[in-house]
Amino acid sequence: MEHRISYTVYYEDTDSLGVVYYANYFKFFERGRSELLGASGRSVAELNAQGILVVVHSASATFKKPLTLGDRFDVVTQFSLPSPYRGRFTQRIECGGELYVDGVIDTVSLDRQQNLIEFPALFG
Amino acid sequence: MEHRISYTVYYEDTDSLGVVYYANYFKFFERGRSELLGASGRSVAELNAQGILVVVHSASATFKKPLTLGDRFDVVTQFSLPSPYRGRFTQRIECGGELYVDGVIDTVSLDRQQNLIEFPALFG
Amino acid sequence: MEHRISYTVYYEDTDSLGVVYYANYFKFFERGRSELLGASGRSVAELNAQGILVVVHSASATFKKPLTLGDRFDVVTQFSLPSPYRGRFTQRIECGGELYVDGVIDTVSLDRQQNLIEFPALFG
Amino acid sequence: MEHRISYTVYYEDTDSLGVVYYANYFKFFERGRSELLGASGRSVAELNAQGILVVVHSASATFKKPLTLGDRFDVVTQFSLPSPYRGRFTQRIECGGELYVDGVIDTVSLDRQQNLIEFPALFG
Repeated sequence: MEHRISYTVYYEDTDSLGVVYYANYFKFFERGRSELLGASGRSVAELNAQGILVVVHSASATFKKPLTLGDRFDVVTQFSLPSPYRGRFTQRIECGGELYVDGVIDTVSLDRQQNLIEFPALFG
Repeated sequence: MEHRISYTVYYEDTDSLGVVYYANYFKFFERGRSELLGASGRSVAELNAQGILVVVHSASATFKKPLTLGDRFDVVTQFSLPSPYRGRFTQRIECGGELYVDGVIDTVSLDRQQNLIEFPALFG
Repeated sequence: MEHRISYTVYYEDTDSLGVVYYANYFKFFERGRSELLGASGRSVAELNAQGILVVVHSASATFKKPLTLGDRFDVVTQFSLPSPYRGRFTQRIECGGELYVDGVIDTVSLDRQQNLIEFPALFG
Repeated sequence: MEHRISYTVYYEDTDSLGVVYYANYFKFFERGRSELLGASGRSVAELNAQGILVVVHSASATFKKPLTLGDRFDVVTQFSLPSPYRGRFTQRIECGGELYVDGVIDTVSLDRQQNLIEFPALFG
């Protein structure tokens, strides 16, 4: 099951090459992950308040086309659980039906004492 | 006439004090200004392509309450023209009907050669 | 007494107008305030660990010239105490001996319970 | 040959989990790449002015330990040329002699018309 949400490119996202700065696509991906959780009626803030932290372990992305100022784009997110301790988000940025960026973000879950815990059954 | 648009606070907006980092409210204000222009059927990118740049001359804000992760807030924007060369955006951040931040952003308009030009009759 | 520290403009600081994005000057100002404290042998992290938070109450800036990619600039910071509860940072951005941005950032000090406390005698 | 440069973590880099926000390590990596070029007496701005753009094609990172507010860290950068059209930056973040983040950033070079060109012999 895929989660999809739309955003607009603002000045804050761009750089002097006239396109979205590469690190900011990882911000967009994080918005998608937060909203995927939100779609199940939970929130990251609530999870954190319960002492469950979801932190990024590794991230990768391939940049195929650059977004520019004013573009309306989609963040598309799929969740999978390659192991009980690893939550994987396969994500992409689309605009006008075309693929702009795709990436994979692997996360782990920690308790308040920063111990690794089983990944909560909350996403997708 | 007021323009109003809603956004959500994500991790990218917060800092280690657990609240939205002060400079990021100026990003939110800029989103509001871009969308005010969008509401009139124009866009900042289109304006720039025509050789009309709207740049910030001065900015001020008072921070009354801090937004936190997951908050859904409104950016409220009003435009006025205190002089033919000065476009003023009176803006505020609201959440749950309460005022969080208010600010005034004064802008000027430049042509491609960076000469000051009369402010375009595009906003509000 | 003035505190001065130098930084370089990177892509992350710029936007699609080819100059530093206006909100990012407030990031530069914050670096200057942190380093002013550092110059007295303290640190913001240490202050926070002691339960003393210094938070921005209001901020204003005037943008006179724009920095561009690769510029080496100075953040210049002066501290004053207009009242026992208000710490004022008068700051400016200089490059090549010229003034680019100036601003005034008023801060207050809070304890762990978010109560207003007297401003700590730590700066300048 | 490795290039190394030091930076400090400021509030702007952190998020409400109390650590550096994951996307911001990619900003730090980009600073390292810019400074590696600078160490050879060139600059990104100069390169862009000559119509040579170096853009990120893919990026990956593994986050081993989190930096926190006030940490003084190093960005370490090595350059290699796996093909005439591909410039690879192998980068890491170190603090107190320990590895915090490592990553690989693959870039390509474009001319003004956005055509792929041979990677300029400028780095390392």
